[in-house]
Amino acid sequence: MIKTAVFAGSFDPFTLAHYDLVNRSLSLFDKVIIGIGVNRAKQGLMTYEEREDVISEIFAANHRVEVQQFNGLTVQFCDRVQSTYLLRGLRNTNDFEFENAIAQNNLILAPHIETYFLMAKSGLAHISSTIVRDIFQHGGDISNLVPSEVLAFLNEKA
Amino acid sequence: MIKTAVFAGSFDPFTLAHYDLVNRSLSLFDKVIIGIGVNRAKQGLMTYEEREDVISEIFAANHRVEVQQFNGLTVQFCDRVQSTYLLRGLRNTNDFEFENAIAQNNLILAPHIETYFLMAKSGLAHISSTIVRDIFQHGGDISNLVPSEVLAFLNEKA
Amino acid sequence: MIKTAVFAGSFDPFTLAHYDLVNRSLSLFDKVIIGIGVNRAKQGLMTYEEREDVISEIFAANHRVEVQQFNGLTVQFCDRVQSTYLLRGLRNTNDFEFENAIAQNNLILAPHIETYFLMAKSGLAHISSTIVRDIFQHGGDISNLVPSEVLAFLNEKA
Amino acid sequence: MIKTAVFAGSFDPFTLAHYDLVNRSLSLFDKVIIGIGVNRAKQGLMTYEEREDVISEIFAANHRVEVQQFNGLTVQFCDRVQSTYLLRGLRNTNDFEFENAIAQNNLILAPHIETYFLMAKSGLAHISSTIVRDIFQHGGDISNLVPSEVLAFLNEKA
Amino acid sequence: MIKTAVFAGSFDPFTLAHYDLVNRSLSLFDKVIIGIGVNRAKQGLMTYEEREDVISEIFAANHRVEVQQFNGLTVQFCDRVQSTYLLRGLRNTNDFEFENAIAQNNLILAPHIETYFLMAKSGLAHISSTIVRDIFQHGGDISNLVPSEVLAFLNEKA
Amino acid sequence: MIKTAVFAGSFDPFTLAHYDLVNRSLSLFDKVIIGIGVNRAKQGLMTYEEREDVISEIFAANHRVEVQQFNGLTVQFCDRVQSTYLLRGLRNTNDFEFENAIAQNNLILAPHIETYFLMAKSGLAHISSTIVRDIFQHGGDISNLVPSEVLAFLNEKA
Repeated sequence: MIKTAVFAGSFDPFTLAHYDLVNRSLSLFDKVIIGIGVNRAKQGLMTYEEREDVISEIFAANHRVEVQQFNGLTVQFCDRVQSTYLLRGLRNTNDFEFENAIAQNNLILAPHIETYFLMAKSGLAHISSTIVRDIFQHGGDISNLVPSEVLAFLNEKA
Repeated sequence: MIKTAVFAGSFDPFTLAHYDLVNRSLSLFDKVIIGIGVNRAKQGLMTYEEREDVISEIFAANHRVEVQQFNGLTVQFCDRVQSTYLLRGLRNTNDFEFENAIAQNNLILAPHIETYFLMAKSGLAHISSTIVRDIFQHGGDISNLVPSEVLAFLNEKA
Repeated sequence: MIKTAVFAGSFDPFTLAHYDLVNRSLSLFDKVIIGIGVNRAKQGLMTYEEREDVISEIFAANHRVEVQQFNGLTVQFCDRVQSTYLLRGLRNTNDFEFENAIAQNNLILAPHIETYFLMAKSGLAHISSTIVRDIFQHGGDISNLVPSEVLAFLNEKA
Repeated sequence: MIKTAVFAGSFDPFTLAHYDLVNRSLSLFDKVIIGIGVNRAKQGLMTYEEREDVISEIFAANHRVEVQQFNGLTVQFCDRVQSTYLLRGLRNTNDFEFENAIAQNNLILAPHIETYFLMAKSGLAHISSTIVRDIFQHGGDISNLVPSEVLAFLNEKA
Repeated sequence: MIKTAVFAGSFDPFTLAHYDLVNRSLSLFDKVIIGIGVNRAKQGLMTYEEREDVISEIFAANHRVEVQQFNGLTVQFCDRVQSTYLLRGLRNTNDFEFENAIAQNNLILAPHIETYFLMAKSGLAHISSTIVRDIFQHGGDISNLVPSEVLAFLNEKA
Repeated sequence: MIKTAVFAGSFDPFTLAHYDLVNRSLSLFDKVIIGIGVNRAKQGLMTYEEREDVISEIFAANHRVEVQQFNGLTVQFCDRVQSTYLLRGLRNTNDFEFENAIAQNNLILAPHIETYFLMAKSGLAHISSTIVRDIFQHGGDISNLVPSEVLAFLNEKA
């Protein structure tokens, strides 16, 4: 049976820390579906379509990684794509408390889905989409924080 | 002298974790006043009137629990209802840091009021009103997270 | 019915932070029993008898505070002295994680006993018996960290 | 290819929280090897042989779980048993900080081994071997904290 | 060579905790520039001009402290004022996680700028501009939380 | 006036994280004295003399760094070497809580001494002397964790 993990987030933008997690998880999971959670109330740096396009481009050569947008709860998305594993990264204790609460609720909502966590790699744990957006919008250099495809897209759009 | 604690919050909605704290605190306090802090700038899942009604219904059989809305600082509300004890729950380290700062400021603002904390019970510590709202608004099952009175109300309103 | 809290610890030595917690809790509890947990395997700065004597001296004028040594689990001690409330202080997130685990286990071991927490007062939260011992043993000044009775005893013993 | 995870610890004793983690991980891993790290300098509640026997008994009916003692670093043990996955549980922020440092070092020592984390289930996160030993040695009830096989063994030995 | 530190923030309003940090840092740095980060999207309690005026008044007698508004990233501001040191305060673990991520990103963006941290002094660590605003807007007493110049200004403006 | 910082620790052994902190601090301080705190009760991997020798060798070419052993409290050592600045690194929230308590006590014991903190650099924050010792004693590779001088010494001694 194929083991598919869902890696969900808003990915505005997708960073090198996200990229590292997906790559590391491919040694365990047969397939990873990157799920872009849609919240139409929020204005982002990139549209949802742009995020899907750029992340798809990043993993174009890897048929074990898929990219999809989704609405609703993450566990509902897992059911739709027949995944019983969630993949999450942990950077620090704030992440831990937030993720722990979500994971406990998910265990109750959907006991058939298990959340597996990887630690963000030292040297990447400081990267967050929020900080990337802030640096980019003030003209700072984000080339050490995002994949080259994201950098190229943002520079072109700007 | 009657010992009255104030348990303040926004309670949008009141959860099983809130319910557990109130019940556990009744072995120590003679009376618990559930104070619903009003912030008219915020749009909630339930109106303040609805919150007051449903929480009152939950504790209808217990004359030692009262429910009131209030404006202003919590310590000002304590003074109005002649309570010198605040009751708070702690779920995790994020709660701790937030509550600690509030408690220290309250000790300076109102040294005659003391804040007593209970740990959220293991098995309930993952519940927050924010998560409940998120699950409910996406059609997830919240029956393990809120009292039956809240569930009935929200289902009817939906 | 008299409401008695147990405030347990090793108190080697009893600090100004301990003193503050006991005094603040007396506005809620009718009686506070300071329970000195005995662990004969550990060599301390003060003997258990010395700790009991000095703490008793500190609260000599307050008949609502008692001091006792005890062996065994804290909840067993509570049962012996007919207390159904434990009082604990919280200084920081390390305290929180430690105390939370203990409190959850106590709720299972002894559901009739409830643990109430007070935040260590800002300006006292840095005080720990461990640090006091370390400073004292290197000849540093601990007069801002312990009650005058403890200071007098330690200076005389040294 | 068979995916084997190593779940290492001192397991003195093996608790219901350990048991839950192993069982949950079996939905992802084909095999879980419970590795009992041997530190002959430490005197425990149970000998290493007793720990191995009791844990083996707990999983006797499940051929996908194995139990072994090991010396040396956990990543060295992984290499010996040809596992490229470590399984760890996270209970709180103290666990997180400790586990994060270990995981980062392991990524440098053995980049081919990845550590996957599960959150301790709410309702079990308060359980630690240290607390179980403390309760047991003072005659408290540990039947809600350990598997029945551990309870039977400890009661017989006592 | 003159050693100049930048102490950046929104300072809405400047508190006694900010004041303490600036004063303590003057034993090490030759000059401290208080940089008020401008975010025109945010409506504050005080305008940016008011903040600059009041903070300048507070340090009027000290020619080693300057006050400036700035736009953009803090490290860009450092370059403009030829400072290679950032000064930050730490109050609790939430501050720590936030500041750590910012500091790591700054080390990558601007390796020639180093961030030095001081612990907020016990007795002041509970003070935040957010809490001060909340208390002030509800008519509470903030005289123990802000310098007298801030208090005078806010009372006059109200 | 020369600004001298004391960087105190047990340094058993001195790691790349320690090395990075000292080097970064030299852009602010005129001189850094590495103080090896002596605790004769503790058996280490390296003797105090060996630690002093190896650290001296590491900084042999830099006359702005000195190495000394010391007994007693760190603030007493600062007074002896006429330093009014302590330098400390912060890796995570556990470090933060520990260091915060020490720093607050030091501010009371010795108000003329100020403690400045640097964040451990991402990519080095996972390194601790304890983990290095553990890896080394089990024959693991520590070449990415310690300066080459430490590695050479330990390999020769082993």
